[in-house]
Amino acid sequence: MKIEESALKKESLLYEGKAKKLYKTNLKNLLWMEYKDDATAFNGEKKESLKGKGRLNNEITSLVFERLEASGLESHFVKKISSTEQLVRETAIIPLEVVVRNVVAGSLQRRTGLHEGMELEEPVIEFYYKDDALGDPLVNEDHIRLLQVAEPEQLHTLKRQALAINTQLSRLFRQCGLILVDLKLEFGKTADNEIILADEVSPDTCRLWDAATKEKLDKDIFRYELGSLQEAYEDILNRLGGAARG
Amino acid sequence: MKIEESALKKESLLYEGKAKKLYKTNLKNLLWMEYKDDATAFNGEKKESLKGKGRLNNEITSLVFERLEASGLESHFVKKISSTEQLVRETAIIPLEVVVRNVVAGSLQRRTGLHEGMELEEPVIEFYYKDDALGDPLVNEDHIRLLQVAEPEQLHTLKRQALAINTQLSRLFRQCGLILVDLKLEFGKTADNEIILADEVSPDTCRLWDAATKEKLDKDIFRYELGSLQEAYEDILNRLGGAARG
Repeated sequence: MKIEESALKKESLLYEGKAKKLYKTNLKNLLWMEYKDDATAFNGEKKESLKGKGRLNNEITSLVFERLEASGLESHFVKKISSTEQLVRETAIIPLEVVVRNVVAGSLQRRTGLHEGMELEEPVIEFYYKDDALGDPLVNEDHIRLLQVAEPEQLHTLKRQALAINTQLSRLFRQCGLILVDLKLEFGKTADNEIILADEVSPDTCRLWDAATKEKLDKDIFRYELGSLQEAYEDILNRLGGAARG
Repeated sequence: MKIEESALKKESLLYEGKAKKLYKTNLKNLLWMEYKDDATAFNGEKKESLKGKGRLNNEITSLVFERLEASGLESHFVKKISSTEQLVRETAIIPLEVVVRNVVAGSLQRRTGLHEGMELEEPVIEFYYKDDALGDPLVNEDHIRLLQVAEPEQLHTLKRQALAINTQLSRLFRQCGLILVDLKLEFGKTADNEIILADEVSPDTCRLWDAATKEKLDKDIFRYELGSLQEAYEDILNRLGGAARG
């Protein structure tokens, strides 16, 4: 999509989430997304502002979405506008977090009792109902039908896309010496009722471990206070071949 | 199955659960099940002994299993031995709680935010991984594959049987002026690798509401201290046409 930068104007705030703000623009079906420096965990119970985090997640997400597009996997991403901002297609977000897991960690470890680090023979997919008041609970396909958040056919599309994205990104990160342990995806419906990847793909939404040392280089650093989140995210951005510190 | 009572002998204790004890017998593939008076809730955190509860659950479960068998739905139940004991076929229990829901209540209310009492157009099935240390978590079909607790084909059998049992029991309870809100089933594999209904079907494992008044007549009375559990269970037994107080 060709956008004349000079013609583009940021308009009113549409939505403010934990990590991003979304503004209308003067152009139809296009939104202005701003990454914030806020870090939250445990359903918002732990919260901090980490200088530079917005830039890092915007840079990383932009790179990832570009790579996905080059592999034929569409997303809402149109272009990076600045170090903390990007232009995205407007979608109606499907209120499901689609989690794909390749290695046991986090809630999968707690749910199953399997040991952290166990590699899965096949990816595991989970759906969480996006509802802060309910604590984003795990749901099964019967719950999704009951909640009317996605038709069975749409659910099939979500799974298919999530697995394809996981395959592609596992390969990409592996080339950078990183293990994609798991990732959380969100999808939206475009004005044409097409389902595409939305939100972000960053160390806030993926677990990424160093392939050699198994060092955690993702939001678990913030969750469990394991060191400097910004240094780890900067490391990820560098490995992906991204811009040096701006 | 014809069993000579005089030939039957209770042997060593095989297993003691929260609500029942299971003994070996002198007969091959047959176990002696004793219902205890213990009531537990919230994964064992709340616990009490309620005189007569073991008898009531044994009587109710025996009646329910007999009715199911008359409808062609098999279970591990062989015969009632005494007011608190029954003879059952030995099975290897599949470590899944299969929950079928017809009306929103309990954890389905908390998970979805839908209002208690909302009737479901189609039943909702949930699987919980039977593991006290993990708190019997909800699992999806990918988790079940990962945990290797049931093959996809067995899972299909569990669902099919659970829905058939739910249909039959909803009708049975409806005839007694009761709404079967939800029920928790456990299944076991016989020596012939056949999957059959096991455990119990009682107001400990079903939510049962009076159809007219919506009064709760099940273990929620114990969970939330709503009155006399024994009176409610006695009421259920009487409505099912069971024996008067022994």
